[in-house]
Amino acid sequence: MVGVSELPSRTDLEVRRLGAPGLRTPLRNADLLVDEDDRVVLTSSTRKLQAFLDRGARPPSFERAGAREHLYFDPATIGVGVVSCGGLCPGINNVIRSLVLTLVHHYRVPRILGFRWGYAGLAGPGCEKEPPIELTTQLVSSIHALGGSVLGTSRGPQDVKAMVDRLEQLEISILFAIGGDGTLRGASALAAEVSRRGKDIAVIGVPKTIDNDIRWIERSFGFATAVEEARQAIVGAHAEARGAWNAIGLVKLMGRHSGFITAHASLANSDVNFCLVPEVPFTLDGRGGLLEVLELRLRERHHAVIAVAEGAGQDLIRAEVDEHARVPSGPRSGSDASGNVKLEDIGPFLKRRIGERLKDQGVEHTIKYIDPSYIVRSMPANSLDAAFCLQLGQHAVHAGMAGRTDMVVGYWNRRFTHVPIPVAVARRNTIDPDGPTWQRVLEATGQPSSMVGS
Amino acid sequence: MVGVSELPSRTDLEVRRLGAPGLRTPLRNADLLVDEDDRVVLTSSTRKLQAFLDRGARPPSFERAGAREHLYFDPATIGVGVVSCGGLCPGINNVIRSLVLTLVHHYRVPRILGFRWGYAGLAGPGCEKEPPIELTTQLVSSIHALGGSVLGTSRGPQDVKAMVDRLEQLEISILFAIGGDGTLRGASALAAEVSRRGKDIAVIGVPKTIDNDIRWIERSFGFATAVEEARQAIVGAHAEARGAWNAIGLVKLMGRHSGFITAHASLANSDVNFCLVPEVPFTLDGRGGLLEVLELRLRERHHAVIAVAEGAGQDLIRAEVDEHARVPSGPRSGSDASGNVKLEDIGPFLKRRIGERLKDQGVEHTIKYIDPSYIVRSMPANSLDAAFCLQLGQHAVHAGMAGRTDMVVGYWNRRFTHVPIPVAVARRNTIDPDGPTWQRVLEATGQPSSMVGS
Amino acid sequence: MVGVSELPSRTDLEVRRLGAPGLRTPLRNADLLVDEDDRVVLTSSTRKLQAFLDRGARPPSFERAGAREHLYFDPATIGVGVVSCGGLCPGINNVIRSLVLTLVHHYRVPRILGFRWGYAGLAGPGCEKEPPIELTTQLVSSIHALGGSVLGTSRGPQDVKAMVDRLEQLEISILFAIGGDGTLRGASALAAEVSRRGKDIAVIGVPKTIDNDIRWIERSFGFATAVEEARQAIVGAHAEARGAWNAIGLVKLMGRHSGFITAHASLANSDVNFCLVPEVPFTLDGRGGLLEVLELRLRERHHAVIAVAEGAGQDLIRAEVDEHARVPSGPRSGSDASGNVKLEDIGPFLKRRIGERLKDQGVEHTIKYIDPSYIVRSMPANSLDAAFCLQLGQHAVHAGMAGRTDMVVGYWNRRFTHVPIPVAVARRNTIDPDGPTWQRVLEATGQPSSMVGS
Amino acid sequence: MVGVSELPSRTDLEVRRLGAPGLRTPLRNADLLVDEDDRVVLTSSTRKLQAFLDRGARPPSFERAGAREHLYFDPATIGVGVVSCGGLCPGINNVIRSLVLTLVHHYRVPRILGFRWGYAGLAGPGCEKEPPIELTTQLVSSIHALGGSVLGTSRGPQDVKAMVDRLEQLEISILFAIGGDGTLRGASALAAEVSRRGKDIAVIGVPKTIDNDIRWIERSFGFATAVEEARQAIVGAHAEARGAWNAIGLVKLMGRHSGFITAHASLANSDVNFCLVPEVPFTLDGRGGLLEVLELRLRERHHAVIAVAEGAGQDLIRAEVDEHARVPSGPRSGSDASGNVKLEDIGPFLKRRIGERLKDQGVEHTIKYIDPSYIVRSMPANSLDAAFCLQLGQHAVHAGMAGRTDMVVGYWNRRFTHVPIPVAVARRNTIDPDGPTWQRVLEATGQPSSMVGS
Repeated sequence: MVGVSELPSRTDLEVRRLGAPGLRTPLRNADLLVDEDDRVVLTSSTRKLQAFLDRGARPPSFERAGAREHLYFDPATIGVGVVSCGGLCPGINNVIRSLVLTLVHHYRVPRILGFRWGYAGLAGPGCEKEPPIELTTQLVSSIHALGGSVLGTSRGPQDVKAMVDRLEQLEISILFAIGGDGTLRGASALAAEVSRRGKDIAVIGVPKTIDNDIRWIERSFGFATAVEEARQAIVGAHAEARGAWNAIGLVKLMGRHSGFITAHASLANSDVNFCLVPEVPFTLDGRGGLLEVLELRLRERHHAVIAVAEGAGQDLIRAEVDEHARVPSGPRSGSDASGNVKLEDIGPFLKRRIGERLKDQGVEHTIKYIDPSYIVRSMPANSLDAAFCLQLGQHAVHAGMAGRTDMVVGYWNRRFTHVPIPVAVARRNTIDPDGPTWQRVLEATGQPSSMVGS
Repeated sequence: MVGVSELPSRTDLEVRRLGAPGLRTPLRNADLLVDEDDRVVLTSSTRKLQAFLDRGARPPSFERAGAREHLYFDPATIGVGVVSCGGLCPGINNVIRSLVLTLVHHYRVPRILGFRWGYAGLAGPGCEKEPPIELTTQLVSSIHALGGSVLGTSRGPQDVKAMVDRLEQLEISILFAIGGDGTLRGASALAAEVSRRGKDIAVIGVPKTIDNDIRWIERSFGFATAVEEARQAIVGAHAEARGAWNAIGLVKLMGRHSGFITAHASLANSDVNFCLVPEVPFTLDGRGGLLEVLELRLRERHHAVIAVAEGAGQDLIRAEVDEHARVPSGPRSGSDASGNVKLEDIGPFLKRRIGERLKDQGVEHTIKYIDPSYIVRSMPANSLDAAFCLQLGQHAVHAGMAGRTDMVVGYWNRRFTHVPIPVAVARRNTIDPDGPTWQRVLEATGQPSSMVGS
Repeated sequence: MVGVSELPSRTDLEVRRLGAPGLRTPLRNADLLVDEDDRVVLTSSTRKLQAFLDRGARPPSFERAGAREHLYFDPATIGVGVVSCGGLCPGINNVIRSLVLTLVHHYRVPRILGFRWGYAGLAGPGCEKEPPIELTTQLVSSIHALGGSVLGTSRGPQDVKAMVDRLEQLEISILFAIGGDGTLRGASALAAEVSRRGKDIAVIGVPKTIDNDIRWIERSFGFATAVEEARQAIVGAHAEARGAWNAIGLVKLMGRHSGFITAHASLANSDVNFCLVPEVPFTLDGRGGLLEVLELRLRERHHAVIAVAEGAGQDLIRAEVDEHARVPSGPRSGSDASGNVKLEDIGPFLKRRIGERLKDQGVEHTIKYIDPSYIVRSMPANSLDAAFCLQLGQHAVHAGMAGRTDMVVGYWNRRFTHVPIPVAVARRNTIDPDGPTWQRVLEATGQPSSMVGS
Repeated sequence: MVGVSELPSRTDLEVRRLGAPGLRTPLRNADLLVDEDDRVVLTSSTRKLQAFLDRGARPPSFERAGAREHLYFDPATIGVGVVSCGGLCPGINNVIRSLVLTLVHHYRVPRILGFRWGYAGLAGPGCEKEPPIELTTQLVSSIHALGGSVLGTSRGPQDVKAMVDRLEQLEISILFAIGGDGTLRGASALAAEVSRRGKDIAVIGVPKTIDNDIRWIERSFGFATAVEEARQAIVGAHAEARGAWNAIGLVKLMGRHSGFITAHASLANSDVNFCLVPEVPFTLDGRGGLLEVLELRLRERHHAVIAVAEGAGQDLIRAEVDEHARVPSGPRSGSDASGNVKLEDIGPFLKRRIGERLKDQGVEHTIKYIDPSYIVRSMPANSLDAAFCLQLGQHAVHAGMAGRTDMVVGYWNRRFTHVPIPVAVARRNTIDPDGPTWQRVLEATGQPSSMVGS
């Protein structure tokens, strides 16, 4: 459980503004407008709320997202930029489409540029040969039926000054950056440089993390689609596990630092017997370690399904590599030309170690390994994600028009919110091993609450 | 917006208990247990919370769901019953499976009976010929892959006393009732009769409403699946609308009293041009009425997509019938043998009225009408709903074991909750025409905020 | 079984040619070329083949489709037109895309026009305001992900002379017409008018019939997708039928004259108990009629699933209307303004008649009616159909380039073929009540081989 | 093209019979019965047929499948066995279900045993602890909704004599063996041993090969489902390829010896640029080799999609291993404990070699590798496969009842057929590099007809 003292302070949660909005919104419907006063409390626990009240403090809360009565920018005169960064995730095209349709239909913004290939389209060698494309309503009309990103993406940062130079040169007033942790840090750096120069450019993030690992954002787009597809892989693993004597279906799912996809797919498909996530350590060896528990299950039930997040058990791989490094006979996991140790993927690593153990113990078995990663990342968004992307795009536009900057659009306690980027990237969102999600997983899988062997 | 005064009071939100729990839980993991003190605030709006604090009141909150340290029932000795009522909804089998697996694997409950055909399996002529079936882990192992309900359902109430007689006779200590509004009222009546008799039978509801219209429950199971399938129908309607000159794709979706499926499917598929829900009145005729606005769109864009909830526009149908009733030449909508006026379905009604109008105006056109209702209701649950059903079942079991009664399991502000049935059924959950969901729909469709013609 | 004498003659199967091909193909790969001598026998039955040989005749055979060594048209100089007509069907966009990609990438054809809204884009009032669009590889690159037709369609014929005038005016050398029975007749009329004028315009059909009812074409595109979606509806009907006491799931599927979709969906989902198609008459009343057989099943098994093709039982509806016409008290099925009897849809008709019968017999029951028609028609093509569409488009281009005309591309006995349009439209493809498909359906459903009551 | 001389002879195609059928069939419908005289010609090419006629020979033909007027076995008295072997494939459960329903509903066979875990359930250590399960209509009623095999499977042969002993001991009269090449050879060996003993046990195969590589069988069950899922992986690869600068989507698909899945998925998704199958050799290096052609494409179009069958390019891997074997510094591909060279998987091999080449050439790029194998194998059957499985099961039962043995049920030229196992397993079905399927692939991908570098 997150302690009260770990919550961001009210001050941290204030969203930066470029200046005081002045122009009245062109939106026709007054009901659409959000009252600036209203905010969304961060915790819904009565106990935590009381802790704040007890010491005379106001509980931390987020600014509500939504259309404002007054705009900071005059929509008729500005240029807007859109960029998507990082790996693919279901729904990027939906967000781009929503941004464009909202900018055009609601604010009549005349010029929207889509930068190609992530931040590389804003600076660096790439931006020369691939000029930004004009995003029109016609161009985006059907893109939500397709996975991927019509703008393309790239990973990694670019020179911040060069990027701001380019924004200035192209007369961009609002930049929408769709991306994860790194992208948002980049967006924050852009906002800082803009501020240093005293320019009027808003930088608004749309949080993209298929792993659902951005803090203070209840759900990220693409996550529901990813869980759906991850479940298909688990259904397949279960059929394989039931289809042969002592068969193990082993599925590796996305999640470098957070096991949400693996956990939720395990909840969605209650045939998972072992759910392994980065947040909950386990060992292979020893009494009560995974291998022993798995072997026992196999002897009793003759099949098993394991869902493992890609970031789980990294310590085990490293430990094995270190072990071999001490033995002159050479590394098992290989080393590259420079002699650097190459870490193994947890999926094949587990497959190998399980196979070795069962062979040692004389247990006839088969292991079927499934890694659906890129199929999942490149899917079009399902309905839930599509509706969510649409709303993220709408709110991002409203925020930018109102002169907010250095923030991402979030969702929390049933409301869309504005979250300052520094707060969003300060720490990752992870599964609390003592929290309700993991408790439900333990109940659903029936796995021991600890598989650290002794 | 819901005013502060409309919120249920703290007293209303207290959940009834059969008695003080005594037995320690057999659950192995102490981390799984919920602290009885902690509750979930009903509103996350700082403004509303402040309103309570200003008058020295504690804001209303729900009891948190979850496993308790002490049980009221001794699991080893009790019998448990499960019943599913009302129309089909994706996920019923998932809930049944979760109830059974949690009862057996976590509490070792020895006897679980599934009543056939809804409350009719508990009383009435039906219950004689179809005895309850024993729900074993083997029987439920694969049922989540199938739509429908393995128990079957029925609509309508049965004699409350006879049902309690039967529960007593079968020595049932906890009855889990999966169903909507009517079912929950029935469950509440059962709890009241049990209480009147001074018996020890808990009645726990699992809220089933594909329309998402149960109050104070953020999301009901099956809703996400329904929106997904509803979107498919809209995608089809859009292809039809684009596939012919001046074509209209008209989709009728579920939602007698609440338009959530229609609204969310419209958000998920931003090709909807007119979203019609029961909560927002509209007229066909007059300046600014639907027919005029639609005709204008057709003249400009040559295609249109309409998504209408089954409960929308009922006043229009009634008005037309009344109109004809005054004219001796007879009803257009037909009347049955007793001369009672039969109301038309809004789908065919709209199709007819739109066709008449466009024909009158000399507008060549075609209308494609789609009604996916039963396909949607009978789907298996998608991943999101499946994970949700699993957790609803787990929490329902925990609640029953702890001696709660006359309550449903809910979900609110990121937590599972206990909601007294009287609070849940006091009023329906509906779309607030001034709230954020409808605002997003208006932005996404571009339809006028009012289509009441003058 | 089709008798030998009913087969088209060898002469009928000769495909018309505009003239002798001269130019060598630009295709790089000699292996791609089809030998003009080789043909595909129409019947694979040794008995039928022997019947021809016995009377010294060569068995009828189709010209094989494929690229030819010599072309009739010089690809570098011609214009090509594409038109899609009739109702939507999964795969139209795939065919359009394949035509364009083959024309551009393989033959380097410089100018491809897509006529909007079917034949109405070639003549009539419509063609003025909606000029044909230029079909480029860029425009078609992603259209196969979408259902519908990017060109739009319309129903009904247009003036043949005006259409040929327009083709001449636009300097079109090959017209590809994607459509069913009526469209192909129109294409044949175009070819005849072109021939009368002594012009060099090839008219090549791509047979589109979701019902699979074009003769001598083993399978039409969209059919596999339609069966897949039809099965989903049946799965839903089955869940509904199992979900309530004495419940009937009634699904109406496409098929005005041929019940292939209904039959194959019944084979794909062996939960159908009654499969009703236009080719096999049945009665409602009498001993052994559908109503009695259904009632018996309900009394024994308490649920039933009926799949009915839209064209089935039309005689029953007409008989009822005639019956009422003799009774002054008026029609049950309604009549329109001119007093013309409006025939009922078989779906609601069956639903009503079944309900009346069961009510009369005092059988408590519920009926769930499902009509997935437009959802099915507007789907994107599944893989099988997509691969098939691609090949149809490739072969259509090869045929046109080689100077064939007045023909459609077919598929028969494992080969793509050329079928003269007059042969293709002479008679519909229907289910043979004594043939293997219907035999498999009878085995799968367990329904009586005759439900004509006495 | 297959030459006429390579076709099996008429004698080879005769199906073995246990003896003369005597008992009249209990099937009620005479129309269901197949005339023993009628057969299905193997070739539909007029040229090949003529070649036989020219030399006074009757063209080779298959016995038609279907119910016969007379049975060899008395259904009321026999026991029947079912076994599934080899890897999973969509549709195994459908076949099992169809066998059971046909045996019970049409022939009233009283006893059907399902052997667990393939041939290991018939002999060997496994068969003791896992007795066969009784297959009832209730047990199989919903299994077609699930992937995998309810019986489980295993790979590899068992002692033939022991298996026949067991069949005799359990009084099995017909054994249905669902499996591929190896399984069918095993079935043939069983039939031979039965014959040697002069026993009355029929052995009927149902051909299972997801790769579609069984000869003289037009299509195998599961193939259509596999192509559908393979396409999803390619769609994902395409989104990834378009989503980054110079990105390559690389998909490995099933097909050890035959590239049908890869070829058909490439046809279904025309975004594949390079389709690599075992039947068509290619090189990586040299002018015109894959690496050069790929690099050129990347420089021009900045993305590429490669679909490779698992059996493609095995010679390239072996060549590289041999190369390293000559160099003392050791193998790159690793070797196992006994010093045996472990061949690499073609997917990772291609990924590595492409990466090395592009890095050497200074081409910035990313490669996304997708291997959907087990997800595909464990899917439930799609509609086409489901209907096909149903009919395979029906025909297998009819064949067994009529006393056929040592045969599989096939499908050819629009008819179900009986194929002697020795003919079916004599040679694999492979893509003809000069035949129409590969020609269509070359047209669709635009890849060079040869990528053997010089």
